[in-house]
This record gives sequence, C-alpha cells and structure tokens, in this order.
Amino acid sequence: MRDLLPAEMQARQWLIDRVRAVYESYGFVPLGTPAVEHLDVLLGASAGREAAESIFHVRGPEPEPLGLRFDLTVPLARVVSQYVDLPRPFRRYQVASVWRADNPGRGRYREFTQFDIDSVGVPSELADVEIIAAMCDTLDALDVGGYRVRVSSRRVLNLALPYADIAADRGPEVFRVLDKLDKLGMAKIRAELTIGYKDESGSRVAGLGFTDAQVDRIEEFLAIRAPARDEVLRQLRAKLGAIPSAETEIESLAAISRRLAALGYDDERVALDVSIARGLAYYTGPVFEANLLDAPEFGAIFAGGRYDNLVMRFLGESAPAVGASIGIDRLLAALVERKRISLRKSTAQVLVTTIDRNLTDEYLAMTFELRRAGVRTEMYLGAEQRFGKQVRYGDLCEVPILVVYGSDEHARGIVQLKDMFAGKARAGEVADRGAWKKERPGQVEAPRAELVARVRQMLADGGVA
Amino acid sequence: MRDLLPAEMQARQWLIDRVRAVYESYGFVPLGTPAVEHLDVLLGASAGREAAESIFHVRGPEPEPLGLRFDLTVPLARVVSQYVDLPRPFRRYQVASVWRADNPGRGRYREFTQFDIDSVGVPSELADVEIIAAMCDTLDALDVGGYRVRVSSRRVLNLALPYADIAADRGPEVFRVLDKLDKLGMAKIRAELTIGYKDESGSRVAGLGFTDAQVDRIEEFLAIRAPARDEVLRQLRAKLGAIPSAETEIESLAAISRRLAALGYDDERVALDVSIARGLAYYTGPVFEANLLDAPEFGAIFAGGRYDNLVMRFLGESAPAVGASIGIDRLLAALVERKRISLRKSTAQVLVTTIDRNLTDEYLAMTFELRRAGVRTEMYLGAEQRFGKQVRYGDLCEVPILVVYGSDEHARGIVQLKDMFAGKARAGEVADRGAWKKERPGQVEAPRAELVARVRQMLADGGVA
Repeated sequence: MRDLLPAEMQARQWLIDRVRAVYESYGFVPLGTPAVEHLDVLLGASAGREAAESIFHVRGPEPEPLGLRFDLTVPLARVVSQYVDLPRPFRRYQVASVWRADNPGRGRYREFTQFDIDSVGVPSELADVEIIAAMCDTLDALDVGGYRVRVSSRRVLNLALPYADIAADRGPEVFRVLDKLDKLGMAKIRAELTIGYKDESGSRVAGLGFTDAQVDRIEEFLAIRAPARDEVLRQLRAKLGAIPSAETEIESLAAISRRLAALGYDDERVALDVSIARGLAYYTGPVFEANLLDAPEFGAIFAGGRYDNLVMRFLGESAPAVGASIGIDRLLAALVERKRISLRKSTAQVLVTTIDRNLTDEYLAMTFELRRAGVRTEMYLGAEQRFGKQVRYGDLCEVPILVVYGSDEHARGIVQLKDMFAGKARAGEVADRGAWKKERPGQVEAPRAELVARVRQMLADGGVA
Repeated sequence: MRDLLPAEMQARQWLIDRVRAVYESYGFVPLGTPAVEHLDVLLGASAGREAAESIFHVRGPEPEPLGLRFDLTVPLARVVSQYVDLPRPFRRYQVASVWRADNPGRGRYREFTQFDIDSVGVPSELADVEIIAAMCDTLDALDVGGYRVRVSSRRVLNLALPYADIAADRGPEVFRVLDKLDKLGMAKIRAELTIGYKDESGSRVAGLGFTDAQVDRIEEFLAIRAPARDEVLRQLRAKLGAIPSAETEIESLAAISRRLAALGYDDERVALDVSIARGLAYYTGPVFEANLLDAPEFGAIFAGGRYDNLVMRFLGESAPAVGASIGIDRLLAALVERKRISLRKSTAQVLVTTIDRNLTDEYLAMTFELRRAGVRTEMYLGAEQRFGKQVRYGDLCEVPILVVYGSDEHARGIVQLKDMFAGKARAGEVADRGAWKKERPGQVEAPRAELVARVRQMLADGGVA
C-alpha cells in the first residue's frame, strides 16, 4: 500500500474523470458499495482457496467475520441480488479501491483502484459489443497511443478439446496448463500435457498423460491467428467446422465482430485472438483484454468478459452479465512511463508572493480577485520572507505564474507577472511539457487593475488548463 | 455500512466535484493515502481510549497489527513527517472513506466519507482566514441555502478559567463538562461543576467542587453573544480585558474577523461564538463549525480548527496546522431532505428503445451517433420486446427522452422522440423537478437525419444537464 502524492493524484483524477465521462456517455450509472463486506459473501463468491487467502480480514465490534473486498464484481452480484427493485438491465460503473494480500510487485499494490463497467441482465451479444466499444472509446479518450483489444471466447476455446479428441471434463486441467503458456513456453506446456518434466529446482511436474498427437492438435488450434478478424473466423471455420456446435460458437464471435465493424471499430483496434483465456474461472462466454502496443510489459490494463453464472450464486436464478475492469494504477504507471500523461504538483495556476508584510491586505485582495475570476490561486503563506525563497517554493510546486508586488510596484500601481516555465523551457528542462516550450518573456509588468485579465491572457497563451 | 445506489451516488459525485473545484481554486492539492494504516500510527495519534475502541482492526499476511483509518488528519500528519521533500506550507485536500466502529445513527454510518482541507506549516492567522473563507465559498457553491460558520478559539475559551477564578490545570475537567451543555442543559452542568447530582438511572454523577459564584462567572462568559462580530469582540474586551494575555487572544480573533470582513465574509455568513468548543482535544487555537440554518438537526456539517501539536507527535518538531472537514454523508442527507439537491437515477439523457429486432443495426447506429455527439445515451438491451415495458424501464430509470423507431418510422424515414417528464409534470408527480414543470408536448416526430439536432434542442429546452 502506498501514498499518492499530489502530482500522481492529479493525473489519477484526470484519468478517472475521463473514464467516467465515457461510461456516462453510454448511460452506465455509478454504484458505491462498502469496502468491508461479510466474509461469507466474499468467500462464497470467491473462485477458490487462492482468493480466500488473499483477503484482508477485518474485526469490528460484532462477532461476524468481515473482510475487505478483493474486487468490485462480487459486491455487484450481492447488490443485484439484494435490491430487487433495481432496473434490469442494470448497467453500472464503479471506481473504488480493492485489497489483495498478495505479494506486491511492479505496478502491483495491495490496495489498488479498479474501474469497472458491467451490464447485468442482457443475454444478447449487444452487451458484449457495447463493453468492447466502451473499452476502445475509453482508451481513445485517454490518448494512450496504440492499443489493441483482443477478443476471444471461452466457448470457442472449449472447441480445442473435441478438436484434440480430449474429453470435455478434462477441460479445466488442460486450460490451467495452457494459462501458463506465455510464462513457460510451448516445450514445457507440451511436457506437462504429456509425460511431465523436472523443473529447475529438480522437483517433478506431473504430466496429464495426453498423447503427442493430441498436443499437436492443441498447438494447431492455438496457431489460429491473423491481423484481420474475418480471416481468424475463416480459419476457425475451416479447422473446427466439423465439430458439432462449432458453428454456433464461431458465429457468436462473428456477430460481435460484424457489429463492431459496423460501428467503426476496425481490426486495428479490436482483434480476435483465440489464445487469450483470462484466468478467472467464472467467465462463460466472450472474454476481452486490452494491451498498450508500446507498453506490453504492463500486460492487460483493461480486461473482462461474460460471466453468466456469478450472480446466480447469490440470486439463485440466472442473471447473465458481462463487464470489464481497468486497473487504474497499472494504466497510470504505463502512461506516466510512456510520458502520455504529465504530472503536475500544483493545482494552482498562480502563486501570489508575499514579500512585504505591510501589503498583506493587498495580497489577500489579489488572491481572492483571481479565485473569484476562476483562476486557481495560492497565496504564499509560509515563513520565508525573502523573494528568492518564495520563488523556490513556487518552483518546487510547479506553479506557472508568480505575482510579484512590493512597495515599488505598490507605489507605481503595477504588478509583476513572472512566467515560471519560460526560463526552464529554454533550458530544455521541461521538454515534455509541450505547452511551455515556446519562447516567452520571463516577466511582464501589468497595471494592478488589469491583474486578472493579464493572468488569463498568459494562461491562454501558455495553454495551461 | 451501506450501499450507495445510483441516484445517491450521482448526487454525491456532483457534491464532491463542486467542493473539489472550490478547493482547487484555492490551490489546495489532492493527496491519497491507504485505507489501512499501521495500528501504532492510528493509536499513537488517537486522542485516547475512546478512539482506540472505534478502530476496525485488519489482519494481513504479516504479523504487524493494522487498522482502518478513522480520520484523514492522522494520515496527513504521518505523510508530512514521512516525506521531507514535500513543499511547506503543504496545503492539501483529501476526500476518502473513514471507518469508525461506533453505533450507527441518523446520517451516521460506520463507513463514511470525509472531505478535508488542511494547511500545514502556517502559524499566521492567514491560514485560518483562508479555511473559513473556503468553507463559505464551498457552502455557497453547493447552494445549501442559509448557513452560518461559527468561529471561536480554544485560547479565548480558556480565558473563562481565570475569569471564574479557576486554576488553569483544571481546564480539561471543566471543558469536558461544558462540552455536554447542549445535551444536558445548564442546570445539570451547574450541578456537575459544583456538588454533583443523581441521573435518571439513580447513579450519582460526582461534582467537581466549584462554587456557585464560579459557575455564575462561567455562565456570564458563555452569555457573551451577538449577531455582529464586532459586538462580540467588544463584550469580550469589556468582560475579560482585565485578565493578563486576554487582549492578545481576543485580538487574534479580531484579526481573523477583520480580514474576513475585508474579503466580504460578513456577519450573516460568519459569526463569533465563544460557546463552541469542538470536542477534539487536539485543537489549540481557532475552531470553526458550520450549520445549515434550515437543517439544524443535522448538526455541524463542516467543522475544523487549528491543531498546532498533532503533527509534532510524528515529526518531533512543531508544525502548525489548521483545517476543516466536511461530513459528506451528513451534508448530502441534509440537502436531500431539504430538497436542495435532486436525485436522478439515470446518467442517460436518451434511451433508444428497441422494439423491432430487425432494426437492431439502426438502433446501434442511432445510439452511437448520439454518444459521439456528446449526448449520454442508453440503448435498451433488456429482454422485454413490448413497447410499454420498455417505456416503463425508461420511466423507472428516469431517462428524459425516449427514441421510438419501428417499421412504420423506418419506412417514413423519421423517429419519434418521447418526452418522459412532460406528462408527469402535468400530473404534478415531479413537482420538485423544476426544469420539467412547463407544459410541453409529450412526443414529437423528427426526420431520422435530424435525430441528434432535435434531441439536443429538447435537452436544451428542458434544461437537462
């Protein structure tokens, strides 16, 4: 867990506001749920032992065991089952912290923020289409650069079993091994599916006992890929067409693809890729994940799928559902590293320096004049009296404009406006701060009465939001 | 703890966005801290046994005891002491959940949201002035109706002791009793300060042993009040002027009052009231609290003060600090009850109904046309085929405009736009939804090609944001 200092918090808030605007343009509604849930809700819904171990336990005044939520999907399922008057479909977004007691790592924290959208109550593929479209629109709105949403389906992936002449009930074992493909490579996967192998530590990994011929067919299945969605569909039909029910499953992917194409979501943005499986056991149909093309090491920063059975665990009746989740922390880390988002420490656009205590009334008046004109303004309230120290403070906080006003300016009825980025930009120190790169005078004089107008002009010229 | 359903979440988000805009106009910067803190941080900073008992304990994978934060001030103090490179003054805002294992009550929950501003590192009264001004500007921005910020000072309140000829070291006992004045009334307060009394249950409340003459003086002190701040200051000086150091303390309140007056914060909005004490032991100077004039039963919905010693517990050096906190849940409850904020279930401005499955391509096209034009639009994706049921869904979600398009409209190249509030407004059912009160036709026809333009026009006419 960690603190989010002002620069990161501002970038994060910008990101969340943008995502929210996209989701609201789709008519998704916000939901809030408590951080603390009854443990039986969390455990009853969890995929198994692994999830249970990653829950932070909470002790309150009553004896019931409590825990911190580990995702936003389980609380959604509880809410849908608890409030019978909610509209159906229920299409909600939620942005909130979740907690997992896993080992933290690069861009992974024990408290992290998820931003989810889900549609509950829509069996048709239109809900899936909408989620995928919203993923694209969100990534476009965030200006993340190149990305690709890869779409597959658990039900199409299941066709690999009859294709390889493997009984359906062995699917979970097989897919558990295939999930490690990226990490282990095909040689080890093949060994584990057949006769097993010894890992680096010398311990024996048991084999599942399939034949090499069966694994060949799985490899053949996984080799289905192409940049164009139509070509992937063609290969799927060519290879799997003979399997009963194959056409139904392939057609459901094809329908999603056609609708996306009609709405302008082309092969560049959305690909079909049968090799993605999404770890979570609760997916039942289409699955999707988005990666940044120039930051693949951050993995899937936005992912989801259809999970028609989860809500049933609470509700006792089927409630089809589909959704996707952004890992806000990881996405933000990727955007910062790729310089697609700029970090700024201050919210203030102007710092009114206070170098002469006799002029405090004037400083206060200027500060509130600017604030009331909609200019975000800080008045220097620290202990430093010297001008240089106050400038350093403004510099440290990255405030774009300083107002300077001493007895001389007072006597002349003017203010000095100091452009804090001009000098730095010349030195190339803030080369990634596009708007500030142009040459501009470092300091200008303005009549006191024109303070607000001149500050506004400078901000407009500098492109400071 | 509770769920926040979409209507309440939207109102809450609106409120938080507004407050954030005010705080940022002042140049406060956002800070984020984890929900879970080390227990020794929480306990070390807590005011005593009572706070310790209200902490939710958390168990993670490591043995260290953890807890959920019970306020945002302690995490701020930790951050200020931990990050030595933070600018000073450090002026931050934070909006986040806090948890207290108290008994829940009206507008009080175990998980609730606080929205805090604080300035750390400013000894001068200018920081106090700024916090009080920000409180007023925030309440104005939220359009809460009449309110009053009442300002006092622990140090002025302390003058009641020499005034009543009570030794300074008995202050804590005296003020602990005085804090109960609103709840118990003056008769019981007098009894407790003198010889004690028997409460309803028959158990004896011990008296502190002061004389009636001393309590008379305390009553006299507490009787200092007037609508005009200058009059309160005059009474303070008249009654307490003889006490050494009184003038210094009174003058520090007077300075705050003068600066507020110069900035336009008049007696209507800000009052001096020596009777407010603010329970928390950590306040050291000025204290403030705001009440809504037409919702006094909700208590202080925004309160704070100066606490120059809290940060020192972490930092080991003095760090003057002053701040204020909004109880978001309570404020929202008050605004909803007083109908100062409207609750709306949908984010969507338009619902595209889908009564003919053969026209799905067209429904999708219209939906995305509207979304891309900035109109928040939902496409009906539920299982109901019948028009009446889809209208009921739109009604339940409170979507202002329905797009209706069947084979007839398709053939004629038009769409029907149904104004969902017009009919209701006539029936008076949504009388508090000001914008929708006027008479307007319930349904209009528009050429399909003019869909976006006509929807925009209807939204503008209806005043729907």
